[in-house]
Amino acid sequence: MAGASRQILDMNAFDSGADGLPDDPLLRRRMRNFGAASVLFYSRPIEMVSAKGAWMEDAAGIRYLDFYNNVPSVGHSHPRVVAAVQAQIGQLNVNSRYLHSLTETYLDRLRATLPGGDWNVVLGCSGSEANDIALRAAARWTGGTGFIVTETAYHGNTAAVIEESPAALKRGAPPAHVVAVPAPSAKTYGKDIAGGFAQAVEGAIEALAARGHAVAALIADSIFSSDGVFADPSGFLGPAVDAVRAAGGIFVADEVQPGFGRTGRMWGFERHGLSPDIVTMGKPMGNGYPISGMATRPEILSKFCEDIGYFNTFGGTPVAAAAGLSVLDVIAEEGLTENADRMGGYLLDEIQSLASADPRLGDVRGAGLFIGIDLVSDKDGTPDPAAAKSLINALRDRRVLIGAAGQLGHTLKVRPPLCLTEAEATFFVDALRAALRSMTAPTPQAG
Amino acid sequence: MAGASRQILDMNAFDSGADGLPDDPLLRRRMRNFGAASVLFYSRPIEMVSAKGAWMEDAAGIRYLDFYNNVPSVGHSHPRVVAAVQAQIGQLNVNSRYLHSLTETYLDRLRATLPGGDWNVVLGCSGSEANDIALRAAARWTGGTGFIVTETAYHGNTAAVIEESPAALKRGAPPAHVVAVPAPSAKTYGKDIAGGFAQAVEGAIEALAARGHAVAALIADSIFSSDGVFADPSGFLGPAVDAVRAAGGIFVADEVQPGFGRTGRMWGFERHGLSPDIVTMGKPMGNGYPISGMATRPEILSKFCEDIGYFNTFGGTPVAAAAGLSVLDVIAEEGLTENADRMGGYLLDEIQSLASADPRLGDVRGAGLFIGIDLVSDKDGTPDPAAAKSLINALRDRRVLIGAAGQLGHTLKVRPPLCLTEAEATFFVDALRAALRSMTAPTPQAG
Repeated sequence: MAGASRQILDMNAFDSGADGLPDDPLLRRRMRNFGAASVLFYSRPIEMVSAKGAWMEDAAGIRYLDFYNNVPSVGHSHPRVVAAVQAQIGQLNVNSRYLHSLTETYLDRLRATLPGGDWNVVLGCSGSEANDIALRAAARWTGGTGFIVTETAYHGNTAAVIEESPAALKRGAPPAHVVAVPAPSAKTYGKDIAGGFAQAVEGAIEALAARGHAVAALIADSIFSSDGVFADPSGFLGPAVDAVRAAGGIFVADEVQPGFGRTGRMWGFERHGLSPDIVTMGKPMGNGYPISGMATRPEILSKFCEDIGYFNTFGGTPVAAAAGLSVLDVIAEEGLTENADRMGGYLLDEIQSLASADPRLGDVRGAGLFIGIDLVSDKDGTPDPAAAKSLINALRDRRVLIGAAGQLGHTLKVRPPLCLTEAEATFFVDALRAALRSMTAPTPQAG
Repeated sequence: MAGASRQILDMNAFDSGADGLPDDPLLRRRMRNFGAASVLFYSRPIEMVSAKGAWMEDAAGIRYLDFYNNVPSVGHSHPRVVAAVQAQIGQLNVNSRYLHSLTETYLDRLRATLPGGDWNVVLGCSGSEANDIALRAAARWTGGTGFIVTETAYHGNTAAVIEESPAALKRGAPPAHVVAVPAPSAKTYGKDIAGGFAQAVEGAIEALAARGHAVAALIADSIFSSDGVFADPSGFLGPAVDAVRAAGGIFVADEVQPGFGRTGRMWGFERHGLSPDIVTMGKPMGNGYPISGMATRPEILSKFCEDIGYFNTFGGTPVAAAAGLSVLDVIAEEGLTENADRMGGYLLDEIQSLASADPRLGDVRGAGLFIGIDLVSDKDGTPDPAAAKSLINALRDRRVLIGAAGQLGHTLKVRPPLCLTEAEATFFVDALRAALRSMTAPTPQAG
């Protein structure tokens, strides 16, 4: 498990030990500056200089189609978001201890996207900060101290949240107040994913109780990104959430990955017909400007605020609000949720058609523009992480940037910007076909 | 203690319970959006619309001199910082998994400002994130689990860091692995502040040991902002740091407040002749663009990275680097460290001269552009938080924004931008004089 988890963060990362330190002055400066905390893609890292829409360009002038990055979700350097930040940063960038109409307009709009009932929002910078508050709010509200996550979940990097993020642990296991259950895949739970997952969650509630921890919350990313992308059948999360609520806990929907249109709906939990008790959001929220949020019911937030005075210096500044508001505008006006649905469907069909003819591609699944492709070594679906790594590098050679996920890192993570055009989707499918073809020859040394 | 601490965050904050909810549509939207986590200055909050240099302008066109905000430290809307962000955000804003020369140029420059020896830097968004890593890195490196902080310290808002932030606790006490010692004031320790503080820290080391916690670190903001601003005599931190190191712990310099020129030196710890084991930074680092950092020795970072894979999505993007680099440029080219020293000296003289003629002003102290003024009710220096609150509101009426600090909230916190001119400093002194004069009449209802 520890070794397996390690795969995910290290998957296809530059490793100065294994890869050596090439005679590249920029890379040498990088390693001196970042030290052991440096995480770079590819054994030959790429120096990027610009990006627009779904495309990035490196220092050598090579253009890549970005199928990886879930932050610039409405498109790299989107003119509307760029203009909004440019205008506001020259005018006023101050903390939320003063009133500003842009911040309230943004939050009015953001709250209107959430399910019925009243919501408050705490704004911050990173998804980690949002989940860090969510854990405390859940514990304070329920009186519980136990948390349930999936086996290869990643919810963030603070001291508290990393305990709920098995994917980030290089060794050791989560602490006693955290129980990790297998992600809701057909491979684990068979045909009744909803029932099987709910049963696993019930088992986790009992395991927590046996350790003296009443359940505070089930926290789940409804697209299960780092677990390997599990989307179907929609609705499968319901029974597990019911079980947690019956035991006195609440449901925290971590929308840092699926939120803001990615799955073809505004929020990933909508596919499950759920109204979460807490919704956390981040990454694509400002299309690159650092924003995050935790939305919850006023009574839950009030309870949280009884103990501590929470204030976030950079949360909810007018510049953050300008970025966030322009993202909501672009999603609505360019119909990006619908485009994610349409282009996602197109990609899913095309990839499934490739998979039906290529035994190296196993299960292909997803929702909207978040698709997982298993790389397998046989008909039983035995994971083949080495093939995933080869494919990632073969796709780089064909100008596509992409990553992997899953406990063993054998699931290719298809995650382009929501503004993807059909021509770009086709470019990817062609590149995938060509990359697979190239891999029948000895694995290329690219990368 | 709990009640006292609560004062600080609530000091002069809008309170819809006590102040009522005026018929102000923006304020009503604000309360609906932020809920219990709303923190607003003044019982009649100000709607800000723009800011430039040391001045902010509200929706009614009233201009205020900003003596409060420690984020836009090189001046609100500084054209150089604004231009740097505007240019880069239109070009590329991507995570640090790709190489970018701007990020490395920034870190080369930042590391060069730190004391001799090798440093690595982990970039994030908020000072809270930086301190959250620092605590873990300190524990991992030393094997200790105990932390020493000052009584009204504030180091951040994550679940882990808030335990080291007594100022943010509305009730209850820090947990067993944290011992809070009185801040290094003459009032507590008499003439030998260095010796007295070191003795208190030694006592804390013993108290931690008795609870089964070897000391991991002393974490201190060297200007002791939230404790009430304690700067002199420079060097007083040395013996306490020696004591911690002798016990196997390390010293974390929280430079979120004093860093980047505020105290008349680039770093607050320089006034104490110290080389910290870990330096954390935030607030003014990007002049409003969310950036933070934790700098430490490569061996300490390597140890931290053995357990977990740390990655920060928004840390070290080219836009963050552009903001940070332009701040370093402005500090150097406009001589802001020297200006902080010069203008700070001028303000200190002028305020001390006012204090010598006004018994309501007690001790006046500070370094550079961070000065604390105690409001007192008698010659023994009995704290008068009500007078501080009145003065804050009287200064607002005279177009100066300012806040308070200290365990009882009776210390006026003088903290203008580093670009302060002599005319602006004089404007403040005149406003302070007039505000004090107005307070001989019944306390104005402003605010």
